[in-house]
Amino acid sequence: MGKLNVTVWNEFLHEKKDSIKRIYPNGIHGAIAEMLGKFGEYNIRTATLEEPECGLSDEVLDTTDVLIWWGHIAHDKVPDEIADKVCQRALDGMGLIVLHSGHLSKPFKKLMGTVCRSKWRENDEKERIWVIEPAHPIARNLPEYIELPQEETYGERFEIPTPDELVFISWFSGGEVFRSGCCYKRGLGKVFYFRPGHEAYPTFYREDITRVLKNAVDWAKPSCGPKPTLGHYEALENVGDKYAGKSDDERTHKNLYK
Amino acid sequence: MGKLNVTVWNEFLHEKKDSIKRIYPNGIHGAIAEMLGKFGEYNIRTATLEEPECGLSDEVLDTTDVLIWWGHIAHDKVPDEIADKVCQRALDGMGLIVLHSGHLSKPFKKLMGTVCRSKWRENDEKERIWVIEPAHPIARNLPEYIELPQEETYGERFEIPTPDELVFISWFSGGEVFRSGCCYKRGLGKVFYFRPGHEAYPTFYREDITRVLKNAVDWAKPSCGPKPTLGHYEALENVGDKYAGKSDDERTHKNLYK
Amino acid sequence: MGKLNVTVWNEFLHEKKDSIKRIYPNGIHGAIAEMLGKFGEYNIRTATLEEPECGLSDEVLDTTDVLIWWGHIAHDKVPDEIADKVCQRALDGMGLIVLHSGHLSKPFKKLMGTVCRSKWRENDEKERIWVIEPAHPIARNLPEYIELPQEETYGERFEIPTPDELVFISWFSGGEVFRSGCCYKRGLGKVFYFRPGHEAYPTFYREDITRVLKNAVDWAKPSCGPKPTLGHYEALENVGDKYAGKSDDERTHKNLYK
Amino acid sequence: MGKLNVTVWNEFLHEKKDSIKRIYPNGIHGAIAEMLGKFGEYNIRTATLEEPECGLSDEVLDTTDVLIWWGHIAHDKVPDEIADKVCQRALDGMGLIVLHSGHLSKPFKKLMGTVCRSKWRENDEKERIWVIEPAHPIARNLPEYIELPQEETYGERFEIPTPDELVFISWFSGGEVFRSGCCYKRGLGKVFYFRPGHEAYPTFYREDITRVLKNAVDWAKPSCGPKPTLGHYEALENVGDKYAGKSDDERTHKNLYK
Repeated sequence: MGKLNVTVWNEFLHEKKDSIKRIYPNGIHGAIAEMLGKFGEYNIRTATLEEPECGLSDEVLDTTDVLIWWGHIAHDKVPDEIADKVCQRALDGMGLIVLHSGHLSKPFKKLMGTVCRSKWRENDEKERIWVIEPAHPIARNLPEYIELPQEETYGERFEIPTPDELVFISWFSGGEVFRSGCCYKRGLGKVFYFRPGHEAYPTFYREDITRVLKNAVDWAKPSCGPKPTLGHYEALENVGDKYAGKSDDERTHKNLYK
Repeated sequence: MGKLNVTVWNEFLHEKKDSIKRIYPNGIHGAIAEMLGKFGEYNIRTATLEEPECGLSDEVLDTTDVLIWWGHIAHDKVPDEIADKVCQRALDGMGLIVLHSGHLSKPFKKLMGTVCRSKWRENDEKERIWVIEPAHPIARNLPEYIELPQEETYGERFEIPTPDELVFISWFSGGEVFRSGCCYKRGLGKVFYFRPGHEAYPTFYREDITRVLKNAVDWAKPSCGPKPTLGHYEALENVGDKYAGKSDDERTHKNLYK
Repeated sequence: MGKLNVTVWNEFLHEKKDSIKRIYPNGIHGAIAEMLGKFGEYNIRTATLEEPECGLSDEVLDTTDVLIWWGHIAHDKVPDEIADKVCQRALDGMGLIVLHSGHLSKPFKKLMGTVCRSKWRENDEKERIWVIEPAHPIARNLPEYIELPQEETYGERFEIPTPDELVFISWFSGGEVFRSGCCYKRGLGKVFYFRPGHEAYPTFYREDITRVLKNAVDWAKPSCGPKPTLGHYEALENVGDKYAGKSDDERTHKNLYK
Repeated sequence: MGKLNVTVWNEFLHEKKDSIKRIYPNGIHGAIAEMLGKFGEYNIRTATLEEPECGLSDEVLDTTDVLIWWGHIAHDKVPDEIADKVCQRALDGMGLIVLHSGHLSKPFKKLMGTVCRSKWRENDEKERIWVIEPAHPIARNLPEYIELPQEETYGERFEIPTPDELVFISWFSGGEVFRSGCCYKRGLGKVFYFRPGHEAYPTFYREDITRVLKNAVDWAKPSCGPKPTLGHYEALENVGDKYAGKSDDERTHKNLYK
């Protein structure tokens, strides 16, 4: 396997305001691409909402091993057809990493089957992300916890299906907890939700956060497991016709359990 | 808590053909209602596709604790609005038990977030449903396995999210296995998928199968857990304003990680 | 099923000191028994370390549906034979509810297979126990969170196997989080770990905490699932002797994959 | 990271009998080492029961990334101290892959916390190992199922804790099913149980089975997650002394919930 192809998708609307542009002059996608690029292990592209087809043409999606998704205020601007294609690609094996407010994006909600809301506030509170599953590959080379001096606060109840694997739990100074690193398998693909990354904080310039993203990319990459046969399927064993020679009446299913 | 209100929904189309009507003269819903009724523990109603609003008016749904769902050839005849209401009620706490080919129904697929296909064939094969989690309440008072002399065959890969709890695995004489009893939590509600119940076999007249349905109803009933507060939420702790008295520049988030 | 038989086991050593006796004059077991007793739904007994056989004779264990366990400073005073009997009973179907520092008791560690340590400090900090799985029966009739003004602090990493179901996550004012309500199936039985309950705080007199214990008892009660047949087992299908009439050489397994 | 160090441990008793020696002339460990060696990706050693310290000296264990374990008739010949060291190394991050009858070995049973029995018979039956979780890395490059023309039969109920991830389910011609590929996290380490591999069949010479072992080694390798701090731990937040200046009586915990 050569280098993984990683596509970083960003709504890229907040960054048009000066206060946010000052933090992410090249957009959140630019920051993530720059930081992940330092590992030298991935072919990294970016895509944004206002590009044609949201930057997610068939050609792009078909050559994406792992898609990273950040969105917030324009989830409904992503056309259903694009969201559906993202879901389909994920079910077909593409890794999907959903960041922060992307929990309310169309692809994530559709793949989860739930509403995915939570508590939240913007209050410059401290977040401490605890590793609770150090044996998980996404915990690789991390410290016991990552402390973010200021982030947006999210709080449980987070309306998600029980994660297949829960890697992180966040503590917030305002009194809440949050399941911050949630792993799912869906179809042939894997989905990872990671909580931090509000646009008003330079979270994506951090090396520890970037390390999580790198680990998540490595974990979410296509597994190349068997593509299952589906639909009508011939018996693998010779089960014969146990009812050969019997009258219709004898074969009547109704009589089975008399 | 008084008696649980159970609504049995059935597509009720197959049973118009003589060969199936002979097996289920009162419809699959009628058979399930009759068998479950013997316990004397539930208020049981039925509802079918061709009734107004598919028999699932707000009044019915609002007073349903557990909904049992059988559908096969007319999944797309269930209007999206009805399917959405069923999903919403499930997320709000109503138990949902999906039977057999209901795995491709709109409510189940939407709550799962996956395509939910499988292998299948109609071949009068033997199915043996093994209890693999005897500590689960749905295994209550069951034998080690339930043997169905003839059923439709389903085979893995079953395109579902990993069940929160897997209670049964089926063996088929033709060579396949299937995850036959799958538990999920979704929102405030619980979903149970149970594999057997092809229209051409009198499976729902069996006492052991009925026992599974009874256990599933008891397990899926509303948990009456806390309805979470969602959206903007005030801090529970007094986190103060750590940045009071600082200049805008000092507060610039951009400087946070310098 | 008549009333469930609940046995509350307590080490009962701390309560000999005045400072603790003032809080739990009848012992922690006495407080739990008194509070649970108010529901009028259980036959409740208590047992303590210094009783003969730790109060856990075969007769007691054989008639216990759910055992609640509190221990702290004398885990190693429980003889291995008693701990093994408790484990065996749990594997045979008895519910086991392990409280607070009982995470380092012999039965819990043995059933988990891990070391079960955590961070801790006694610092009169606030604990807020968040319900993250409101669809779980242990969340029944609870508020969104339970706030304990002062408790001992526990912190992740908690060295447990991933819980089958995680119902609660605690927030502590000192900066930690903890998986506070952990469900496991083991053999035919169910195990629930619940974090709070340091001897220096009157936690077990609280109605909300008692509600959790009541829900846990109801959840952990024996499932009465099938007791599996184990060991050598005759084939259920007639697989014949496919090798009849073949020479030993033809039957040599070595040739199977040539 | 350089090449992974893989140690293949085998009881190596059956292979002294001619009928088995004919199949595994270099022992089961020899066959596994030879087949895994073809990938050229691992440093592979073997160790057996009758070597000093069972071949598992501190030096060997300390330099083992992944330990593969095959045992059957002499589980109790492995001294407790060796079994305990294996468990400790697994909890400290070493991957552990347990094969076939190794489910009753001391290390596996201790790490599971359960009795781990199953049904079984030696009957030359067909086994078909179905991949049910194609998104899992252990399913990489596998077909939909692996068919073994003859193997020992194992049947549910398999007395294990619910696997964190279930990758394979086996079908047997005699009528049973079995959870054949079970993933667990324990401490900092990962454990994989894989069902096939009876000594009387040349299963470990198969390329598909070897592929599973390779995938399992890659999955089970040390995650290099954070080694948690345990025990007494200072508060990370300044929680102050909320009770400063209050009398002992005011601070009495007993008064907390009055």
